[in-house]
Amino acid sequence: MSSTSDARFMALALSLGRRGMGRVWPNPAVGCVIVKDGQIVGRGWTADGGRPHAETGALAQAGGRACGATAYVTLEPCAHHGQTPPCAAALINARVARVVVAIGDPDSRVAGRGLTMLRDAGITVDIGILQDAAARDHAGFLLNRSQNRPFVTLKLASTLDGRIATASGESQWITGPAARQAVHAMRARHDAVMVGAGTVRADDPSLTARGMGDVPQPVRVVISRGMKIPETSQLARTARDVPVWLCHGQGADVDRWTNQGAVSLPCATTAGQVDPHAALRALADKGITRVFCEGGGMLAASLLTADLVDALVVFSAGMAIGAEGTPSLAAMGIDRLTNAPRFRLDSLRQVGDDVMQCWGR
Amino acid sequence: MSSTSDARFMALALSLGRRGMGRVWPNPAVGCVIVKDGQIVGRGWTADGGRPHAETGALAQAGGRACGATAYVTLEPCAHHGQTPPCAAALINARVARVVVAIGDPDSRVAGRGLTMLRDAGITVDIGILQDAAARDHAGFLLNRSQNRPFVTLKLASTLDGRIATASGESQWITGPAARQAVHAMRARHDAVMVGAGTVRADDPSLTARGMGDVPQPVRVVISRGMKIPETSQLARTARDVPVWLCHGQGADVDRWTNQGAVSLPCATTAGQVDPHAALRALADKGITRVFCEGGGMLAASLLTADLVDALVVFSAGMAIGAEGTPSLAAMGIDRLTNAPRFRLDSLRQVGDDVMQCWGR
Repeated sequence: MSSTSDARFMALALSLGRRGMGRVWPNPAVGCVIVKDGQIVGRGWTADGGRPHAETGALAQAGGRACGATAYVTLEPCAHHGQTPPCAAALINARVARVVVAIGDPDSRVAGRGLTMLRDAGITVDIGILQDAAARDHAGFLLNRSQNRPFVTLKLASTLDGRIATASGESQWITGPAARQAVHAMRARHDAVMVGAGTVRADDPSLTARGMGDVPQPVRVVISRGMKIPETSQLARTARDVPVWLCHGQGADVDRWTNQGAVSLPCATTAGQVDPHAALRALADKGITRVFCEGGGMLAASLLTADLVDALVVFSAGMAIGAEGTPSLAAMGIDRLTNAPRFRLDSLRQVGDDVMQCWGR
Repeated sequence: MSSTSDARFMALALSLGRRGMGRVWPNPAVGCVIVKDGQIVGRGWTADGGRPHAETGALAQAGGRACGATAYVTLEPCAHHGQTPPCAAALINARVARVVVAIGDPDSRVAGRGLTMLRDAGITVDIGILQDAAARDHAGFLLNRSQNRPFVTLKLASTLDGRIATASGESQWITGPAARQAVHAMRARHDAVMVGAGTVRADDPSLTARGMGDVPQPVRVVISRGMKIPETSQLARTARDVPVWLCHGQGADVDRWTNQGAVSLPCATTAGQVDPHAALRALADKGITRVFCEGGGMLAASLLTADLVDALVVFSAGMAIGAEGTPSLAAMGIDRLTNAPRFRLDSLRQVGDDVMQCWGR
């Protein structure tokens, strides 16, 4: 098989894997393609909730045709008995001849053991095909395992001069319906949606992914040192329907929320605020791999200042408010341009009447 | 001739006309194409400084072939003897059979008289081909004649959160070299470049169009009520090389600048600032049709608040500074979103590492 077709089949496996984004945590969103004599005989991806794994689905579709075939897997197959038998064993049992892997799994229970199992069984194993693309797709899972934090996407939606509300607090709507629908789609592709207390008080959002059909809903995370937020908030009232997790400081008044089904995650504080590292660690410990932060300006600034933002999505509306408006980012203590966090443009497009810019590290 | 080929030849004439943008004031930047038996036999556009006119150039190129031909002109041919004989007469003398005009000339010395002269001479005249595009191209000239002000392009170059400098005043460079080169090209396509006093004090800019070859330079306009700007500024020191015009209030200390060649344009003031309507009227009276405003935040806000911005060009760098940074727009007194000036996206592209958004009304 040429490296061109290897790349082509792996690209397909990656696109299948991305279907699981936001739906499979704490597991990685893996894709798998099984190819026999140049024909695709099986396609699979991690199912909602994390099981069955991608290889299982693809092997089931391939059936007997898997024998002698090549399997393309976007992440090293697992080698351990968890809630499912190891995928490496399933590939061996199906008698595939070759396994092509994009990137290794740093999980301490795998960490090369999947590849070794396959090679020990006489299977040809190639690793590294489209590894950069796979590292991007699996960034949340890899960060969870390597840095004990999820991948963080920060969304800003502002006027052309970077304002998110007028001086009187009016913020609905700066961006239009198409941009808001794009935000719902982004929520659905993350494990959790996160906001600060000020945003809950000002906007009383529900933070669900709507207009997307019947999709798994992201966990809704509130970052608030003191939890001085009315228990009549939409989030509190719907906490039994869609999870609400509270990253809060010592002595916060959380009972009014936990009584309604919200989950308390006590976190360390710094400078009178929940420490952003601590909050993300708490989410990673619970298995979250991808977080979508929707502000407000204080939380966004604290994440940027702590160098914890991996992707920045900026929606700009064709409108100007001026300096009395609420800024999209609060104070960051940056005095020199060389100290400002910098991003690299990934994509750019018009969404309805607004502009969407996606920036990465 | 089909309307499709009419539109095609007029589109060519418009593109020729645009070559004159920023170089022909106080005249309009007109384009002309002469077509005989389906072949282009003459092309012309308003020359640097405004003369010869587009029709003159195209007729000279066509020579005897103009007889019986169709002339496509982006603006109604002039009917009056100014510094050149009327173009309508030149078309008649060349014995063209048909003249296709995109849009009428509202100048009181023309205002339909050009069309009447042609028709009276037995020439077929059609008007309105690509008139919307022509109205956009000639917007500066049309605004000068109809509202006694130039077309205003406002440029903002900021971080993703709408900041143009750090708290310590550091602003060079937020955007990269490709964006700055695009700004030089934009300066060259405007008759004048305009900044507020704060920008001159903070950045001491030269505001010339550089890296463009030997192009006519835009007039450099400073808006300042009191002109409390050092006479050692680059603008003052180079005022004899490239014009510097000062829109200032009563009693401003302008002699230090006029002694070096700058031109004084006294303007009315409102709320302690030069009235933006008055400043633009002064520029229009001097023949300016297109102004490129490069800030700062006070001047930009005053133009937006007065509804005097026709095009908004926003460069965004992949960087965040936070709320202590200098905002791209100063206070605008907007309390309700419905009162915010709104723009419609015209174009969007990556320029170097930055994003360029062009918004119109």
